[in-house]
Amino acid sequence: MSTTPAFTGVIPPVVTPRTSAGALDLPGLEAVVEHLVGGGMHGLFPLGSSGETPYLTDAERTQVLACVSSATAGRVPLLVGANEQTTARVIEEARKVAAGGADAVVITTPYYAIFDAAEVKRHFRAVAAAVDLPVFAYDIPVRTHFKLAPELLAELAHEGTLAGVKDSSGNDIAFRQLRLLTRELPGFAMFSGHEVICDAAMLSGADGLVPGLANVDPAGYRRLYDAAVSGNWETAVKEQDRLAELFRIVEVPDASRVSPGAGGLGAFKTALVQLGVIGANTMSQPMESLNAAEAARIGEILSTAGLL
Amino acid sequence: MSTTPAFTGVIPPVVTPRTSAGALDLPGLEAVVEHLVGGGMHGLFPLGSSGETPYLTDAERTQVLACVSSATAGRVPLLVGANEQTTARVIEEARKVAAGGADAVVITTPYYAIFDAAEVKRHFRAVAAAVDLPVFAYDIPVRTHFKLAPELLAELAHEGTLAGVKDSSGNDIAFRQLRLLTRELPGFAMFSGHEVICDAAMLSGADGLVPGLANVDPAGYRRLYDAAVSGNWETAVKEQDRLAELFRIVEVPDASRVSPGAGGLGAFKTALVQLGVIGANTMSQPMESLNAAEAARIGEILSTAGLL
Amino acid sequence: MSTTPAFTGVIPPVVTPRTSAGALDLPGLEAVVEHLVGGGMHGLFPLGSSGETPYLTDAERTQVLACVSSATAGRVPLLVGANEQTTARVIEEARKVAAGGADAVVITTPYYAIFDAAEVKRHFRAVAAAVDLPVFAYDIPVRTHFKLAPELLAELAHEGTLAGVKDSSGNDIAFRQLRLLTRELPGFAMFSGHEVICDAAMLSGADGLVPGLANVDPAGYRRLYDAAVSGNWETAVKEQDRLAELFRIVEVPDASRVSPGAGGLGAFKTALVQLGVIGANTMSQPMESLNAAEAARIGEILSTAGLL
Amino acid sequence: MSTTPAFTGVIPPVVTPRTSAGALDLPGLEAVVEHLVGGGMHGLFPLGSSGETPYLTDAERTQVLACVSSATAGRVPLLVGANEQTTARVIEEARKVAAGGADAVVITTPYYAIFDAAEVKRHFRAVAAAVDLPVFAYDIPVRTHFKLAPELLAELAHEGTLAGVKDSSGNDIAFRQLRLLTRELPGFAMFSGHEVICDAAMLSGADGLVPGLANVDPAGYRRLYDAAVSGNWETAVKEQDRLAELFRIVEVPDASRVSPGAGGLGAFKTALVQLGVIGANTMSQPMESLNAAEAARIGEILSTAGLL
Repeated sequence: MSTTPAFTGVIPPVVTPRTSAGALDLPGLEAVVEHLVGGGMHGLFPLGSSGETPYLTDAERTQVLACVSSATAGRVPLLVGANEQTTARVIEEARKVAAGGADAVVITTPYYAIFDAAEVKRHFRAVAAAVDLPVFAYDIPVRTHFKLAPELLAELAHEGTLAGVKDSSGNDIAFRQLRLLTRELPGFAMFSGHEVICDAAMLSGADGLVPGLANVDPAGYRRLYDAAVSGNWETAVKEQDRLAELFRIVEVPDASRVSPGAGGLGAFKTALVQLGVIGANTMSQPMESLNAAEAARIGEILSTAGLL
Repeated sequence: MSTTPAFTGVIPPVVTPRTSAGALDLPGLEAVVEHLVGGGMHGLFPLGSSGETPYLTDAERTQVLACVSSATAGRVPLLVGANEQTTARVIEEARKVAAGGADAVVITTPYYAIFDAAEVKRHFRAVAAAVDLPVFAYDIPVRTHFKLAPELLAELAHEGTLAGVKDSSGNDIAFRQLRLLTRELPGFAMFSGHEVICDAAMLSGADGLVPGLANVDPAGYRRLYDAAVSGNWETAVKEQDRLAELFRIVEVPDASRVSPGAGGLGAFKTALVQLGVIGANTMSQPMESLNAAEAARIGEILSTAGLL
Repeated sequence: MSTTPAFTGVIPPVVTPRTSAGALDLPGLEAVVEHLVGGGMHGLFPLGSSGETPYLTDAERTQVLACVSSATAGRVPLLVGANEQTTARVIEEARKVAAGGADAVVITTPYYAIFDAAEVKRHFRAVAAAVDLPVFAYDIPVRTHFKLAPELLAELAHEGTLAGVKDSSGNDIAFRQLRLLTRELPGFAMFSGHEVICDAAMLSGADGLVPGLANVDPAGYRRLYDAAVSGNWETAVKEQDRLAELFRIVEVPDASRVSPGAGGLGAFKTALVQLGVIGANTMSQPMESLNAAEAARIGEILSTAGLL
Repeated sequence: MSTTPAFTGVIPPVVTPRTSAGALDLPGLEAVVEHLVGGGMHGLFPLGSSGETPYLTDAERTQVLACVSSATAGRVPLLVGANEQTTARVIEEARKVAAGGADAVVITTPYYAIFDAAEVKRHFRAVAAAVDLPVFAYDIPVRTHFKLAPELLAELAHEGTLAGVKDSSGNDIAFRQLRLLTRELPGFAMFSGHEVICDAAMLSGADGLVPGLANVDPAGYRRLYDAAVSGNWETAVKEQDRLAELFRIVEVPDASRVSPGAGGLGAFKTALVQLGVIGANTMSQPMESLNAAEAARIGEILSTAGLL
């Protein structure tokens, strides 16, 4: 462990654009990378949830990482998701992304499997032993149905298994407790993925941010981060409040037609179309894409936020 | 749809033995197949949850199906699990098992994904359209965290998307309601996976049974099924009560050491070792295997049940 | 403990009618009692969930029990709910219903409280020690958010704390396991509250039934019970299937207007209006009552079931 | 609605001491009130969860409020819990506490009942219409199993039904969203009950704090609050981190002996014994009290925090 985390700052989960016919849109993905690196992002996180990774075939995952890696060209580091059900499968996936240019891998607990905390520890240890990259735990109980307890994460941090955590648990109490448990461990990096309380996460001691909404407004999250690091909390809160209003684009999709999973990511993609970064807001099967009325409403919110 | 289900009877989910070193034990798997076919099973269900499929690599899944298919040699049909997170990935998996000799594929809803009922319908329809085999829905909310409602399943059954359901939901109210909703649809096959209430499932109109415990005592479940089909409910209940006592082998593992997922399957494997069918009770990573004391206690239960 | 349960047969949870102005309708309640006793019920269960007990004030609860007790006039025994949050409050409530004519009290685990299994045991033991009546556990995790495990219930049964269980857990696997664990304890009474699988519950060894739908068709459940006790399973299943179709009245209410809690009980009350037993289908605050269109549709289902 | 909230600052939920024999300890309760008012609290919140209200009989609730009201003698306002299952019962309880000296009532959604959002709105409206006091919503899904959505709360705030919210939901994303939705409504008061992220709650726009741990260290939370209000975030964070370490007293109880509900409140009571405020740490039935070893360990933590 180094004395400061190797990864800090804003590292957004990169969306995966598709053409209107449903194929991967690799030029669009390159444009997203430019949009993000140009927006001041400190790193990129491809093959995360916002990248629709659960919906990508193995071949598509390989293409996405190759494209992001090539487009980034080493300008910023890549945290890359290695998303699979259980240990042996995660190891295979992690080795693939390591070979594909990852600077760190981000993995969840087992899922679909019926497991317990002891298996979670063996899982993280086995993956960390099998790959020659820093391992980040991805804490996302809304998907895995298992909250990683601060004590468990702290144990894995102190023994050197984990280099950091990407927190999407919605549990800021546990986030703060983990920070206190790892205060003496400066190499352990804590990232929050919660778009609307990034200022509070920084106040609680986060090292960085992983908000999906940074796909839409990278510069805004960069300003928020910089203000927080400088102790300019009034500025950070003001920027956060603006971004929280922008985040209301995820409330636009009609819930009777678009699932919760499709709605949030679909709103990001739709905004990127409006911003001229990509050409289509098509979602992976079986998700519904947002329609014209929803796109128009999102355009209004982007205007109010000063992005159009 | 035919006028009677193409699949009826007892079709157990086949365990996947490993050597004590952790490799696939293919001779052991062949022995399990012989044990089950010889025990009167009407079909086999490889690559299900009892087969530790979530823990198998892609290569292992291919080897398991090839081995079961070869050992079965067409004596009974094969329902085969195609276990993946979302639509495009399930289609790839389903095509693989179709090529590997499956007579039907068994698939779940999406998981890890955040979805809704409309996506579930699109998911099943897309898979059914993409593979040239009957599709069974596998209803296992303890893993997928989504219960398939009777009305949703009935809709997919009536339109011809689904050929049947493998119910591991623990919800016999919904099971009965689905039976009533599909009474006029004789080609739709309903299977229950609940070891201790198979008699009640048959009374409620099940076409067949998929109990993991049938790995241990196939002949017992065959007797239960035959009694129920003949209307000999007193015999069916008596056999069920005996099997319910046998099922207490899953309570043997020490929960402070062995997870719930590992405990049940580990008990089946341990019993198969005691019965001389396989050589080791090794579990897939990161699950713990049962120890000698637990094996001894399981041996006692097998003796009481008249199996040793 | 006696050698046979003191309570067997069909003992429905009695609905609590209100006038269209919202006041308790005690003449209507008397009519419900006559309808049920006349329909062959072996006992009555006032102040249960179907009686809207959570919504009744203390004064209303006292009036309801006095009315049911007086109208029943000892013709059948009364199991009475003593519904409160925690131990001391349940004891006070249980003593009230004991004074009001209860032959047994039916109590849940604590709720709203944050508790564990050890507290549940102390809770049941304290209540049983404090009241001079048989105590039934009411297992309804959809309300209490705690499933009573078979082993816990069996322990309390064997030590004499519990005289029986009223199972509304939807978990027939656990119900069967509890039956096996109490087979040697003939004084322990097991009741199922699940309207559509009463035949299966009887096959699994239930001593009796507590279906809310028996408010609508007591004679039907009596026939089902008698057939099951006589081993006429074909008759029992046929009657169950008819009652399961009748139970579809609970699917009639528009879920966008009527909550799940209000819909089921509202359907029972609406059916009782159509049958001429009570005068209004008014629900307790804040529940919505069913409207005319819903009542008409329920009337059609009653006709199909041969009740109108 | 006034232009500023009538209630701001630190308003702790007051614990309810019992003698070692289990009776209410009213002199102890008076001492707690002095400890809290003397510690700079801006108000008191008796009959909340930390007051073991779910476990108090009706008579005890009346005694507790009378004692707190008398001991406070109008020095600070009283927010008082009116804890019951459903609308009519909450109204009765709310009228009781209004008569007992409450300056505002704090109520939850229905619980034990099976309800929906529309019933929740009717519930809050009916209670607000029936009592002549400001009504605070108490958002505590770990007990009620229903999260109050920001949009629902904002609607009730804007129409004047709710005067504020006491948030114990653990969901700071929703807390921030509610703040943004009520920014134009200065009379609406938002309180956070989360002991370890009070600084973050203040940054997000909270009007006040309701931490149970303030029973133990009222002055600490007062310092945190004052620092936050003054924009001295560095001081606020430092104080918060110290209090978060102090909060680890709730991790002391042995979870195999003491339930989660009993452990936290038992730790507060045990600390108050160590601080000489009350004489016994006895818990209400059926909760276990902390033992001598646990008390000793809590003493050590109090010492480290500079309180002993």
